Amino acid sequence: MKLVNYTAGGHTRAGAIVNDQVIDLNYAYQAQLQALGKYRYKEIAHAFVPAITDELFQGGKESLALAQGAIDFILENPDRFDKKVIYNRSEVKIEAPVQKPGKIICVGHNFRKHIQEMGREIPTHPVIFAKFANTIIGPEDDIPHFPISEQLDYEMEFAFVVGKQARNVSEEEALDYVAGYTIANDVTYRDIQRRTLQWLQGKTVDGSLPLGPHLVTADEIGDPAGLDMVLKVNGEVRQSTNTDDFVFTVPKLVSFLSGLMTLEPGDLVLTGTPGGVGFAMNPQQFLKDGDVVTIEIEKIGVLENKVKAVKQPANV
Amino acid sequence: MKLVNYTAGGHTRAGAIVNDQVIDLNYAYQAQLQALGKYRYKEIAHAFVPAITDELFQGGKESLALAQGAIDFILENPDRFDKKVIYNRSEVKIEAPVQKPGKIICVGHNFRKHIQEMGREIPTHPVIFAKFANTIIGPEDDIPHFPISEQLDYEMEFAFVVGKQARNVSEEEALDYVAGYTIANDVTYRDIQRRTLQWLQGKTVDGSLPLGPHLVTADEIGDPAGLDMVLKVNGEVRQSTNTDDFVFTVPKLVSFLSGLMTLEPGDLVLTGTPGGVGFAMNPQQFLKDGDVVTIEIEKIGVLENKVKAVKQPANV
Repeated sequence: MKLVNYTAGGHTRAGAIVNDQVIDLNYAYQAQLQALGKYRYKEIAHAFVPAITDELFQGGKESLALAQGAIDFILENPDRFDKKVIYNRSEVKIEAPVQKPGKIICVGHNFRKHIQEMGREIPTHPVIFAKFANTIIGPEDDIPHFPISEQLDYEMEFAFVVGKQARNVSEEEALDYVAGYTIANDVTYRDIQRRTLQWLQGKTVDGSLPLGPHLVTADEIGDPAGLDMVLKVNGEVRQSTNTDDFVFTVPKLVSFLSGLMTLEPGDLVLTGTPGGVGFAMNPQQFLKDGDVVTIEIEKIGVLENKVKAVKQPANV
Repeated sequence: MKLVNYTAGGHTRAGAIVNDQVIDLNYAYQAQLQALGKYRYKEIAHAFVPAITDELFQGGKESLALAQGAIDFILENPDRFDKKVIYNRSEVKIEAPVQKPGKIICVGHNFRKHIQEMGREIPTHPVIFAKFANTIIGPEDDIPHFPISEQLDYEMEFAFVVGKQARNVSEEEALDYVAGYTIANDVTYRDIQRRTLQWLQGKTVDGSLPLGPHLVTADEIGDPAGLDMVLKVNGEVRQSTNTDDFVFTVPKLVSFLSGLMTLEPGDLVLTGTPGGVGFAMNPQQFLKDGDVVTIEIEKIGVLENKVKAVKQPANV
């Protein structure tokens, strides 16, 4: 499945993209349960196929399988329910495929070729740092550029979402703990990132994590190795790599992280960016108002966002 | 008020400590509303004085004032409600005063005297880093020592909780955005913290943030300057300072952080630790099974936790 959250009529709800349609998962399952004569169809649907993806991931593979069954049902019985279940994609706004993950864990220095180019040693342990959920925006949102720095930069990243609680998971079992994969842009204010030892302050500015265009469930990807990734700014290729070049693969990261902390369903992990960021160009190139950043990852899709200069917001 | 969450009969709910009693805030308000003849007392109480502190903070000063009124009511009318509202402190387990904050922001290098002792420059901007909510434990919990490192260390910290949404708040207005203050121990696995450039991995191990013993609401503290702080291990003083020694005061931190990101009610900020950590002693002293770490901060109280060696947990 290609999972999203979508907004229509002011409601933001979990959906799946099928061809050019968006199917509301919770309503599709309600329709199926109602057709089965279940009197408490709303409550059962809320328990097993909740209406926002963050909660849906808590149900693990069982919930994803029920959601897939509900999609199949509603496509065969499209007029079966009293609420609108199927939208044309153009009728809705697509939002980020996770909304408020408990953790956003980012990996640094994780592409072998780029590390070697820079004359650095291959690290023995992943470098990890955080962003907070205030950063998440969707594939149809603009990247806000707040006037706190001139050094707004992009970082193309392959991202995964945890699918069940994980603590001390082996590399062999690790992929069983992944709900699916998506594309992230780890937008960074470089001078703010670098003015102290710790990167967090340049990483967690509001709106600095475009995510999407959807989450592709793990069953459709299989092995997350061997995927081409490319980032363009206004059509010019800036970053280009393949997930084969990871120092720490997805299974290694799940195992490493779960050895330190309990990973929960919905937690988001960004796996690092390759060479080619604007800060490292000669001369340096930073993002400016109107720039379009496009990231394509094989088997996932395309995440494209425009940069928009905004005023520093007044306090509410 | 001295706010806590408490567990009794398997339920964890928001309470206030009054002398040696714990008052259930939501039930106290339900009792008051019922006495006023409000038919929908449960729903109104859930809206204004919810049953867990993380949600209570969302109601801002209005909710805290209603909670205080409800305490006054129930102490005058202790038999007014059909549910147990007042407990002796010994009957319940006290939990951390916030459970799942959206952000845990930690400040580094924030005590002037310690920075000067080390021959470092006073920083121009706060160093900030993250912990995640998997770290939070309460004042009656043991600090788990997982066998992933021998270098378990303490860090005494004065902490505050955000009381209303804040974006670009001035220093002058900043204290109005603080719900209250508590004590934190930023427990750190030193070798894990230091093996990469970014500290997160040594900071966010499960159970590494004892918090409490309660949150003292901002109205009872007034200016958070001038508070003595002392940490002892097995009764031996290891850290001793005063909040007057901050490089970046609470108002400065609220203003700085809200200039980067939207702070939300319930977000937790740890304001940094002074000199005297075990890692910096000669010879180095790390925490071991059975050690008791006691932190006292003036006007707040005492947070005391025992260290307990535990096995690395098997995956669930």
